[in-house]
Amino acid sequence: MLALDALAAQATGLSEPNPRVACRLILADGRVFEGHTQQAGGPHAEVMALRAAQAAGADTRGATAIVTLEPCSHHGRTPPCCDALIAAGVARVIVARQDPNPLVGGQGIARLRAAGIEVELLPTDHPLAIASRERNIGFLSRMTRGLPWVRMKMAASLDGTTALSNGVSQWITAEAARTDGHAWRKRAGAILTGIGTVLEDDPRLDVRLVETARQPLRVLVDSRLELPLDARIIAPPGALLVYTASDPAATTPKRTALAEQGVTVIDCPGPARPGSHAKVDLAALLRDLARRGVNELHVEAGHKLNGSLLREGLVDELLLYLAPKLLGPGLGLANIGPLTELAQGVELEFVEATPVGRDLRLRARLPGRFDRQD
Amino acid sequence: MLALDALAAQATGLSEPNPRVACRLILADGRVFEGHTQQAGGPHAEVMALRAAQAAGADTRGATAIVTLEPCSHHGRTPPCCDALIAAGVARVIVARQDPNPLVGGQGIARLRAAGIEVELLPTDHPLAIASRERNIGFLSRMTRGLPWVRMKMAASLDGTTALSNGVSQWITAEAARTDGHAWRKRAGAILTGIGTVLEDDPRLDVRLVETARQPLRVLVDSRLELPLDARIIAPPGALLVYTASDPAATTPKRTALAEQGVTVIDCPGPARPGSHAKVDLAALLRDLARRGVNELHVEAGHKLNGSLLREGLVDELLLYLAPKLLGPGLGLANIGPLTELAQGVELEFVEATPVGRDLRLRARLPGRFDRQD
Repeated sequence: MLALDALAAQATGLSEPNPRVACRLILADGRVFEGHTQQAGGPHAEVMALRAAQAAGADTRGATAIVTLEPCSHHGRTPPCCDALIAAGVARVIVARQDPNPLVGGQGIARLRAAGIEVELLPTDHPLAIASRERNIGFLSRMTRGLPWVRMKMAASLDGTTALSNGVSQWITAEAARTDGHAWRKRAGAILTGIGTVLEDDPRLDVRLVETARQPLRVLVDSRLELPLDARIIAPPGALLVYTASDPAATTPKRTALAEQGVTVIDCPGPARPGSHAKVDLAALLRDLARRGVNELHVEAGHKLNGSLLREGLVDELLLYLAPKLLGPGLGLANIGPLTELAQGVELEFVEATPVGRDLRLRARLPGRFDRQD
Repeated sequence: MLALDALAAQATGLSEPNPRVACRLILADGRVFEGHTQQAGGPHAEVMALRAAQAAGADTRGATAIVTLEPCSHHGRTPPCCDALIAAGVARVIVARQDPNPLVGGQGIARLRAAGIEVELLPTDHPLAIASRERNIGFLSRMTRGLPWVRMKMAASLDGTTALSNGVSQWITAEAARTDGHAWRKRAGAILTGIGTVLEDDPRLDVRLVETARQPLRVLVDSRLELPLDARIIAPPGALLVYTASDPAATTPKRTALAEQGVTVIDCPGPARPGSHAKVDLAALLRDLARRGVNELHVEAGHKLNGSLLREGLVDELLLYLAPKLLGPGLGLANIGPLTELAQGVELEFVEATPVGRDLRLRARLPGRFDRQD
């Protein structure tokens, strides 16, 4: 029997854009059955646990259910989980977190109570409530802000160098950190990069080093539509969205060629800037990705796009792999400044510092995105 | 009753240049008495524990002593601890580590055994043996290499910036990290900086934010003897050594003025360099500090001196406080490179990553200085 959050974690790379939810049923006779959210359109955690109990011929009447997120009360692609719990005769439901969707939050609990089920909603600072928030921080972000949770992945030496001045950057971190980075890619609904990185490094930006049932969407910021037709990011697996600010009339042949390769080009120009080409409106890009069901956006870009996202306040979290080495001057993490006062810097809060192989994984968040007690 | 290493830690800032040692006496009647090394010339840990037992009127015959470092067998400023243990009728001694001094290592154990005492030397991977090594890593370094353990303290943003381009650097880290930094200063026999830092920041480089019985020596690398006579580093508390490569004849008035203020000027020129002024021989400086009894050297310098020490392979450990912020370009940790290959960087190994207030304390070591199992 797994810890309930670890069970919910098994929905990672599977259930998106649905949340990662686990359910444990404790029957009146003491037996325990569990389940987690399946792929979108498939059964939710509660139904999986109930099916497991039924498959064992167990009597679910009078059972207690613990769910890491409020059971759904609306007909989506599947019937409401509330109805399944009610029909199964469950007596008590412990809910770790209310559904963050403002349209449905609390309705599931109300429906269960109306059916005579005792419902306990855990306080928001309960460990299981916090684990549920962290596990579904992207879903929470999309539901409450209409934005994905933007996690910016970086790898650098202790002195903040991500590549030498001559561009050499493979590999600053060791294999364990790179594998860990793929586990974070897998969590994400989409992986974002910029045309500069594609032209320099030609990355695939897929999930290879860990197993996954689903490849994240790849997303490219390419203001002038410079994407080469033989770029590796175009190749399967996974779809590619290219956001551009280029003139559709002037780039018709490129657009046609990309469409033939299955690439979706999306016009997303920011305001015109005198003396410079138009740039992609990054905030609009994020809103569009949320509309497409992207909960967590994993950014692996160069210092220019990183800097733009940070300066526009669009980043929620840094995922920084620090290698135990000093490399001297080179390319940095993000194009910021030069500043004249320390207070102009980007202030963050550390969330974790964890050894990964010989390297260190740091996560830090922009303050006020979600409070610890949220 | 403290853990034995925590008791040894109480000798920090007190016993230097002697090691930090604790002794626990477990009497035949079950009573326990403890002690740790006092100031140099004062009693060692074993004598402190025996005195405590004797003051309580206890009978030490048949007792077991646990000592974190091999008891001394030679007459230094105090009589040998071995003799005290033998005279007290101790039956058994557990020794966490052999004395690293190659001249006396093992002699204490031999002397105890010759007196009929049962002696157990813990294996080098025993937690108490490792703790003793870490607690006395500077003493170990000085005894085995004739060099202090060189710990380079730095404070930077996540992108490796230690000061903005305009020089602003107060404060990148928060108060808790600065206080922690003073605890590491207190550990050190000496604090080293360069003339650039003195001219720019005019630091005091003393221990203020934590209590200490003793101020570390201050050490300045000042190749051209540019130290201003009103620099704060000259003021008490603590002595100041200035290592220079300047021409004694050309700097006589400055030397006289410094001597009048109690500053010791030491000629330590490196090889002459055509087209440039002579620089202090940093390796010779370290050897001289070891001769003066400096076990741990705490470096708080700018990126130039940091770079020189690192390039010459003279650094053993980085003590890096990372603030959760991004500051963009500015001054970096150490003047290294520019490199053309990643393998030319300074490779380290993480020893710890610990939150200190809102900041993070990282320690990383140059590999092979002392093995984990040493």
